Amino acid sequence: MSMTLELTEQPEISADVSVDLDRTRQPQYGRYLDELEPGQVFEHPRGFTFDTGNMLNFARTYMQTNPLYLNAQYARAHGFADLPASPQMVFNVTLSLGVQNDSEKAIANLGYYQVQFLRPVYPGDTLRAFTKVLERKDRGPDKPGITRIRTVGVNQRDEVVLQYERKIMVGWRGERLPTTPAPQVQVAFPGEDNPCVELPLVQSAVSPGLTGPNTYYEDFAPGDIIVHANGRTITEEHMALTYMVGNSHPLHFDRIFSSGLSGKMSGEPIDYGGLVFAWLDGLASRDVSENAVWELGFTEGYHTQPAFAGDTIGALSRVLAVQDAPGAEHLGIITLQLIGVKNISAAAALKQHGADLFLKEDAKRALGKEKITDKIFEIERRLLVKRRPA
Amino acid sequence: MSMTLELTEQPEISADVSVDLDRTRQPQYGRYLDELEPGQVFEHPRGFTFDTGNMLNFARTYMQTNPLYLNAQYARAHGFADLPASPQMVFNVTLSLGVQNDSEKAIANLGYYQVQFLRPVYPGDTLRAFTKVLERKDRGPDKPGITRIRTVGVNQRDEVVLQYERKIMVGWRGERLPTTPAPQVQVAFPGEDNPCVELPLVQSAVSPGLTGPNTYYEDFAPGDIIVHANGRTITEEHMALTYMVGNSHPLHFDRIFSSGLSGKMSGEPIDYGGLVFAWLDGLASRDVSENAVWELGFTEGYHTQPAFAGDTIGALSRVLAVQDAPGAEHLGIITLQLIGVKNISAAAALKQHGADLFLKEDAKRALGKEKITDKIFEIERRLLVKRRPA
Amino acid sequence: MSMTLELTEQPEISADVSVDLDRTRQPQYGRYLDELEPGQVFEHPRGFTFDTGNMLNFARTYMQTNPLYLNAQYARAHGFADLPASPQMVFNVTLSLGVQNDSEKAIANLGYYQVQFLRPVYPGDTLRAFTKVLERKDRGPDKPGITRIRTVGVNQRDEVVLQYERKIMVGWRGERLPTTPAPQVQVAFPGEDNPCVELPLVQSAVSPGLTGPNTYYEDFAPGDIIVHANGRTITEEHMALTYMVGNSHPLHFDRIFSSGLSGKMSGEPIDYGGLVFAWLDGLASRDVSENAVWELGFTEGYHTQPAFAGDTIGALSRVLAVQDAPGAEHLGIITLQLIGVKNISAAAALKQHGADLFLKEDAKRALGKEKITDKIFEIERRLLVKRRPA
Repeated sequence: MSMTLELTEQPEISADVSVDLDRTRQPQYGRYLDELEPGQVFEHPRGFTFDTGNMLNFARTYMQTNPLYLNAQYARAHGFADLPASPQMVFNVTLSLGVQNDSEKAIANLGYYQVQFLRPVYPGDTLRAFTKVLERKDRGPDKPGITRIRTVGVNQRDEVVLQYERKIMVGWRGERLPTTPAPQVQVAFPGEDNPCVELPLVQSAVSPGLTGPNTYYEDFAPGDIIVHANGRTITEEHMALTYMVGNSHPLHFDRIFSSGLSGKMSGEPIDYGGLVFAWLDGLASRDVSENAVWELGFTEGYHTQPAFAGDTIGALSRVLAVQDAPGAEHLGIITLQLIGVKNISAAAALKQHGADLFLKEDAKRALGKEKITDKIFEIERRLLVKRRPA
Repeated sequence: MSMTLELTEQPEISADVSVDLDRTRQPQYGRYLDELEPGQVFEHPRGFTFDTGNMLNFARTYMQTNPLYLNAQYARAHGFADLPASPQMVFNVTLSLGVQNDSEKAIANLGYYQVQFLRPVYPGDTLRAFTKVLERKDRGPDKPGITRIRTVGVNQRDEVVLQYERKIMVGWRGERLPTTPAPQVQVAFPGEDNPCVELPLVQSAVSPGLTGPNTYYEDFAPGDIIVHANGRTITEEHMALTYMVGNSHPLHFDRIFSSGLSGKMSGEPIDYGGLVFAWLDGLASRDVSENAVWELGFTEGYHTQPAFAGDTIGALSRVLAVQDAPGAEHLGIITLQLIGVKNISAAAALKQHGADLFLKEDAKRALGKEKITDKIFEIERRLLVKRRPA
Repeated sequence: MSMTLELTEQPEISADVSVDLDRTRQPQYGRYLDELEPGQVFEHPRGFTFDTGNMLNFARTYMQTNPLYLNAQYARAHGFADLPASPQMVFNVTLSLGVQNDSEKAIANLGYYQVQFLRPVYPGDTLRAFTKVLERKDRGPDKPGITRIRTVGVNQRDEVVLQYERKIMVGWRGERLPTTPAPQVQVAFPGEDNPCVELPLVQSAVSPGLTGPNTYYEDFAPGDIIVHANGRTITEEHMALTYMVGNSHPLHFDRIFSSGLSGKMSGEPIDYGGLVFAWLDGLASRDVSENAVWELGFTEGYHTQPAFAGDTIGALSRVLAVQDAPGAEHLGIITLQLIGVKNISAAAALKQHGADLFLKEDAKRALGKEKITDKIFEIERRLLVKRRPA
């Protein structure tokens, strides 16, 4: 069925409609602390369709080196149905889908927890996201508080592809304009309590030349520290890249907003942390993950300092554990700590700060240590990695 | 049938060909006022193939929030054959296809008139464009004059997808180098005199959570003023984005050209106006158009001040009219005025300038009012919008 | 076959793994002069999958005007199976695939030689690359030397699509960290000794309006000098674009690396030369190559000065030869010299430097002439071009 509309010549009419300033509204997005109730479930707007071009683009922009995300022939040879989206893209898109509702009014992103990748995302897939409010900690009226939320990304078959928790710091609404009304009808929250990942079990016959010789499971032992040689200078590109994944927080692309803030956030737009993490992951990738077949997830992660256009970032990894992969003799699991620094090379940062670089920033006060101001990120991650072919 | 060419080793030969500076030519593109004749029809070079990746890219870069342009599943649920290109992309591409012939020698783009969107553009479609010279107003030899032109964009089935008029200010050629010769054979002009748009009539069963709760037809009443919260800082990205849609005017990406101009245009490359309009549309979209199923067109629009890399732009909308959509009970038509400002937030601009912000800049002299220098754009547009689901 | 892994809640473990700085490694990529042996063959990592979106993106970013790379309908009408990747994209990607092994430790890229395009690359194709070390010229221990290498790009059917030679200047490893080990098993080198290109032989019925009227074979005569009107200001975009084609040399995107160098390379990241060449080719294209159906190759080419973010580049072409295309009466071959300049318009550069602009920079010392510091590039190229339709 279809409708037909005539497109006739239109006269201008604005001069005929008198301006009444009392009829002004200024819609607000995000939620203030007093607008969030534990148990609430939000379905996020938009959705995000993945396509081959932008998946390749994302992997290349963030300096990914695992051929799984760059080379469709390689991905298929490993049993994947097509080129899978890089985990960083799936994570960034899902985080961004939630911003307009969850965190466009947030003051700070405090951390990522128990991030789990459950299924591949392929070209043509469309992700939607849902958030459940788990907890809300008030520190009294008009004082910013902390909310803990759980978010899932689902594909067009309603299968969960990613789930995680976040803590965010949010201000009290007080006298400010209300945000868009919460939905009246409660929707079901699709998070999985006993998540599993099902992966193709193919010992690929691809040429071993497509990945480096030193990044198989056997090349990692607990305690190994790996300094990643190259850094990346972030340019003003970060503003466009923020919206490319759908993140609508003006802190990242609206200089009038960012310079109008009070306190230490005031100034140039701050790089969206998800992009910084993606670059750090990419800078590390040729040394630690180019032979990975799956990113199992991130345990806990923190942006400990912001980054801005003009900053050059670098990365270090430390091996925390290695273990067999149940049911897959040709694979193993490695657990890594990933550390990011800025405006100092990774090698110089290690020389200057030594073991303290790998200490959680939040643990330093109790140990009587100073925070490291050129350290920008810390996270633990687990990868499923190929063993060296016979 | 095919041909086979041997690729043999080539010697360098440049040293053997003597340099004769009298053999120099400097091809020129665009048309001067004295090179344009009313009735002339030009077929524009190149053509432009649309693909899913760049359509999604465009929608995301320009901060579009209507899922119709971001979510292929949503688009199909509304009866579209696939993800349609956003109207701003179709408009920008068609404008740009015409630049090399119509306006690469233009001094100023004076306005858009009766822009009409006739058909969706889908991935795989290839657009070409044609322009007919309607009018030419000379103000005497050697003085810049104004030409009125009509342009259409057609797809690979020769169906019109877009048509509009523009007025541009163009200089007199005089002693300058001639431009590429006009075609000898007159081509037919494919513009439609009684344009209609045929749209799928599907009351989608998609989750209402994919769009906001406050942007249905019922949410708009004539006189409503809507201040869009976020702004966008434009970076030097605009130079690359200009060529990404195929616009070849050096004013937008060649600093030697732009800084070599005389008068008030001299200096940094100026943002191509089509990009500025696309961002303003995107900034407004979550408040006014995320539930739209079609952009019917733009009545008249003007770039009243240029924008440059480093500027932060903001947007306001005003509802001018609401009316039923003939033959579609679940839809309605809203007419909006869209206003752009720069280097001031939309809220601050409204506070400072009040009702004058909505007055056409060209009308101000007659009213004894000053032009608003931080206002950059004004247009009237009509949208076909969903009514709130029962 | 597949495997299932449970994703259980993970505790943080970094605090339990003591930090031992003696366990640090810093993997290095590229090869030092003393690590290269004539006869060695390297298979390059990653591979690169082409898709329609990024092929169109590349052509548009670098200002290509030949509809063959912009308009899928036009490409098919000329007998191509689909939109072919632009030669500049195939060249840039193949060069970049080789960087991590061949030139990430290079001090300078000295030149391109006998670049030959053998087959079209279509959406969905995946390229890999191989390099053979041809020659190594030492100038004594610890002094940088020159290596001559041969590289081929092959598609997923192991067909060669591109091959060329390069000379690069590389330092001696000496006391520095070793790079990743060379492969133990020698791989075969797929270069073709008697290369041919097989092309569709279709006299297209497309509208002649899709290309300009002045760029057919008959429009070129040996000695013609063509000044390309527009320039392009390169922004910091070049850092992202470098990785978009997969080039991993930190000189182009890591300010800590580039500013830490000694000598005249020290400072801001230098534009990757392949991108500069692509822009120069694009700036020239509407005057010389928009009616080309194949780029046969580049004879010799040199980047004679570096370019940086902020520079504006321009281009000139000179016709060196015209000849019949064996077996194709509707086509001809033109040989062109392409010259790049920066921070001066092409027209002004010709006025200032005259015939010397077309003299190879390396030949100048012998002639008692100064090098031209605002000249950045010189190359000879051969194009297969349509004759003017009857």
